Amino acid sequence: MDRIPILKFGHFLLVTIQVDMYDRLALNLENDLVNAVSKHEARGVLIDISAVSIVDSFMGRIIGNIATMSRIMDAETVVVGMQPAVAITLVELGLPLAGVHTALNVEKGMALLQEKIGLNAHSDAARAEEDDDDQPE
Amino acid sequence: MDRIPILKFGHFLLVTIQVDMYDRLALNLENDLVNAVSKHEARGVLIDISAVSIVDSFMGRIIGNIATMSRIMDAETVVVGMQPAVAITLVELGLPLAGVHTALNVEKGMALLQEKIGLNAHSDAARAEEDDDDQPE
Repeated sequence: MDRIPILKFGHFLLVTIQVDMYDRLALNLENDLVNAVSKHEARGVLIDISAVSIVDSFMGRIIGNIATMSRIMDAETVVVGMQPAVAITLVELGLPLAGVHTALNVEKGMALLQEKIGLNAHSDAARAEEDDDDQPE
Repeated sequence: MDRIPILKFGHFLLVTIQVDMYDRLALNLENDLVNAVSKHEARGVLIDISAVSIVDSFMGRIIGNIATMSRIMDAETVVVGMQPAVAITLVELGLPLAGVHTALNVEKGMALLQEKIGLNAHSDAARAEEDDDDQPE
């Protein structure tokens, strides 16, 4: 298998990582995800790693890369379902996944994404309103 | 990997099959899914097979089994993302997946499930209403 399927849910993309991320698979995933964000105008990316029990610095870096790429494309990334052992390993490896949002499971991750997008939309609207207030009447 | 993760979305469960279904994995999936339907009181099961490019009679039977088990537990099963080659192979193998609903992608599958559950709820309500009408006034 050379590709991990990317599922579309409304404004979000969902990826379930079930296998070890060897180099080619990871590079394909990065590439496919960025293209999918662009194609579907996605606002959020959910990465489920509940099936991942072993993590290394390569996989940590890949997740960080995906989050950074998505942010540049105006999409938030939430990593869900992390096993405790994986969290321990990531911190011990010195990879605290800075800038990556996390949630306990897919439902909570989806809620977090909706909140983030809602908040952004709200703050944009609030900012626009404030700008209006600044205008001379 | 001995388990395929089962993701919960509201009343639905989502399973993405990305690897070859050898015996043990398939039996674990059947078992886990039936338990998850019971535990989460799920009304629908979505099985995404967009990453499956090769299918055999074993996998065809497993999908049929899951659908039958789910139906007994009052949950509908929708298989989504089937590749054309897989559909051809299934029919040539004499496994037309009778009783399994299918949809082109996850979004359409989710809509189909919602419609099915809505319809059932509606027909239950309609039946209840008709029953009411039968009552002497």
